[in-house]
Amino acid sequence: MLKLYYSPGSCALASHIALEEAGESYEAIRIDFGAEEQRKPEYLSINPKGRVPALITARGILTETPAILLFIAQNRPQSRLAPLDDIFDLARLQAFNSYLCSTVHVAHAHRGRGHRWADDPAAISEMQRKVPESVGACFELIESEMFEGPWVMGDTYSVCDPYLYTVARWLEGDKVDTTKLPKTMAHMQRMEARPAVKMVLDNHFG
Amino acid sequence: MLKLYYSPGSCALASHIALEEAGESYEAIRIDFGAEEQRKPEYLSINPKGRVPALITARGILTETPAILLFIAQNRPQSRLAPLDDIFDLARLQAFNSYLCSTVHVAHAHRGRGHRWADDPAAISEMQRKVPESVGACFELIESEMFEGPWVMGDTYSVCDPYLYTVARWLEGDKVDTTKLPKTMAHMQRMEARPAVKMVLDNHFG
Repeated sequence: MLKLYYSPGSCALASHIALEEAGESYEAIRIDFGAEEQRKPEYLSINPKGRVPALITARGILTETPAILLFIAQNRPQSRLAPLDDIFDLARLQAFNSYLCSTVHVAHAHRGRGHRWADDPAAISEMQRKVPESVGACFELIESEMFEGPWVMGDTYSVCDPYLYTVARWLEGDKVDTTKLPKTMAHMQRMEARPAVKMVLDNHFG
Repeated sequence: MLKLYYSPGSCALASHIALEEAGESYEAIRIDFGAEEQRKPEYLSINPKGRVPALITARGILTETPAILLFIAQNRPQSRLAPLDDIFDLARLQAFNSYLCSTVHVAHAHRGRGHRWADDPAAISEMQRKVPESVGACFELIESEMFEGPWVMGDTYSVCDPYLYTVARWLEGDKVDTTKLPKTMAHMQRMEARPAVKMVLDNHFG
């Protein structure tokens, strides 16, 4: 059985939802970031990066959300969570997820993880100050150029959708003006109406 | 014919090398970052993010290095640039490339692109100061936990290799102590001995 290591509210929520949507049998194991469990030897032996998500499979351990999402989709092709038979559409899906991990999540991380890139408290505060603007710009670009609707890739729900939903949940805390993001807000509502998402939210935060 | 938009020395080098290794017929089109060509309407109509790489295919435009590398590998399966028949190994490949784009490239970008995350010049300087440490830590983790050797994924060359090589070329400018990175340095030499890499370097910077 697959095991997903996660922390509530982290980007691991995307993989958690995808596992549920795929109909996988899995165990979700919570890592307590408040107690810095992710930096303890026991967890570092699972993921030396000290981050979540990590997915334990029969073949070994996988990390990084875009890779885990692709694995979940390929491991349960009947769930149709990615366009596996179309290399161009699959690359488009990976491009969307790459943008979320390399640009959107990174912009957001300057609010709570500024110590990764600076030590001076004044610099860390300055990074935090800019988060509403930098994250907001990412989502405006998603709405104008990437989001097809009603799902990210168009008519078909895919692993992009739980990932976008997960990152969009951070908008309020990032103090982004969400009145400029009607497509993202409607997508969040659409996601929260799905039974799999409801079930995961209960377990993930419960 | 595929068209690759690139800027010399950017992460687009990874896709450029992969196209050559795949035996693709392609045209490489240089964007002049010095003249801010990436922010002009002509280029923004190709990639609204104002970044490189962008790959023009018969089906449409692709962006984001991990997505373009996967497309190149899938479009020329006979070149064996990715383990396409093994979903676990393919996810491992995507995890490595995701780490490069979301963590390593991002750490490096705090040297020259700090304005993405702060406006105050003092904060931007502080980010630059930390780059040798943050990028160095990423590469030490790659050497201790990810790099299998002689190639990233082990015995088989893959699209991870030109991507690692591309990012490793930034180490000197990032003032990282490369004496701690023997595997990365040996990998760079191994890469530069490949005919496809030599040919691309001549064209990319020529």
